[in-house]
Amino acid sequence: MSKGEATRQRIVAKAATIFNTRGIEGCSIQDVMEATGLEKGGIYRHFANKDELAVAAFDYAWRAAFKKRVAGIDSPANSIDRLKRFIDNFIEQPPPVAGGCPLMNTAIQSDDGNPLLRARATKALAQWRNRLAKIIEQGKRKKEIRGIVKPKQLATFLVGSLEGALMICRLERNRKALKEARRFLSSYLDTMARSPRRSKR
Amino acid sequence: MSKGEATRQRIVAKAATIFNTRGIEGCSIQDVMEATGLEKGGIYRHFANKDELAVAAFDYAWRAAFKKRVAGIDSPANSIDRLKRFIDNFIEQPPPVAGGCPLMNTAIQSDDGNPLLRARATKALAQWRNRLAKIIEQGKRKKEIRGIVKPKQLATFLVGSLEGALMICRLERNRKALKEARRFLSSYLDTMARSPRRSKR
Repeated sequence: MSKGEATRQRIVAKAATIFNTRGIEGCSIQDVMEATGLEKGGIYRHFANKDELAVAAFDYAWRAAFKKRVAGIDSPANSIDRLKRFIDNFIEQPPPVAGGCPLMNTAIQSDDGNPLLRARATKALAQWRNRLAKIIEQGKRKKEIRGIVKPKQLATFLVGSLEGALMICRLERNRKALKEARRFLSSYLDTMARSPRRSKR
Repeated sequence: MSKGEATRQRIVAKAATIFNTRGIEGCSIQDVMEATGLEKGGIYRHFANKDELAVAAFDYAWRAAFKKRVAGIDSPANSIDRLKRFIDNFIEQPPPVAGGCPLMNTAIQSDDGNPLLRARATKALAQWRNRLAKIIEQGKRKKEIRGIVKPKQLATFLVGSLEGALMICRLERNRKALKEARRFLSSYLDTMARSPRRSKR
């Protein structure tokens, strides 16, 4: 890695934490300068403006979060157990970038505004949903999951329920809502999604 | 209402829309001046600073949102149907203040920062959850809801799942995730929460 590239990555990593914690509108290039110890010119050499840095910071934070969430989810043999592994990851993995879920934070900040960031968040959501939908499709083919289950819809419901529970947990500063969401989603998966013929506990 | 009080309310209503759409950090007192046509002094006569205005604006937006969400929920005789009415309200009622759910927006903006706003959002969440938990408790007493159901936990799950689905809808600019969430939550309520002895459809 060249020195320039290393500096660029250091800026992105610092900006990711700052933006994800305080919101993009809530901080300035000045804050990134302070965090990195770089002059303004040292940052603008790599990014045309704050928006461009915000996009790179989101991509960085999302990649890190997504990696943690899907870690090892193909290890369990049964697809319902793979979905549960994903839920466990979401709840138990310490967040890679401070400040909560970068997807939710960026979605809330960009839904009425910044089209560039909104496009990245939309793409991130699609990647996440598709990853889970693929597991559900495989599960249906292997008759582990009932034929009536719609992969994309169940994936969306899992993502939405966990993100909403995370919002509550971050507001209340405890882990309750997420742990409760896990109980509801697990019992839903076992009762309504798991194919009764192949039910293994 | 005195002229001063009317002016105060006009400032709060305008600020609520601006803050809920663009985020509190994303706009300034200047924006509120432009929206209300008032001079800076005319705003600071009523609010000591932007934070104080932001709290009043949140309270205003939340009151309006909460009112819509609980409108008529005590009309259905059965408590499961009351919960479904609440879900319908959440999905079908046009938002009273533009920019999405004020609770979610404020939660995301204040979870790492502004303690005053965070306290208001936490209180709003508790009010909402308690309203739903009360319905669930009544349902348990009337044997419409299974004894095993935990009122506060189910209320939290309903709130979280709908808020997460709303986040997805606002990002994708369609109503799909909310409508899908309704299907999952309804089937959950009917299958796992509704007491089998008194099941009425």
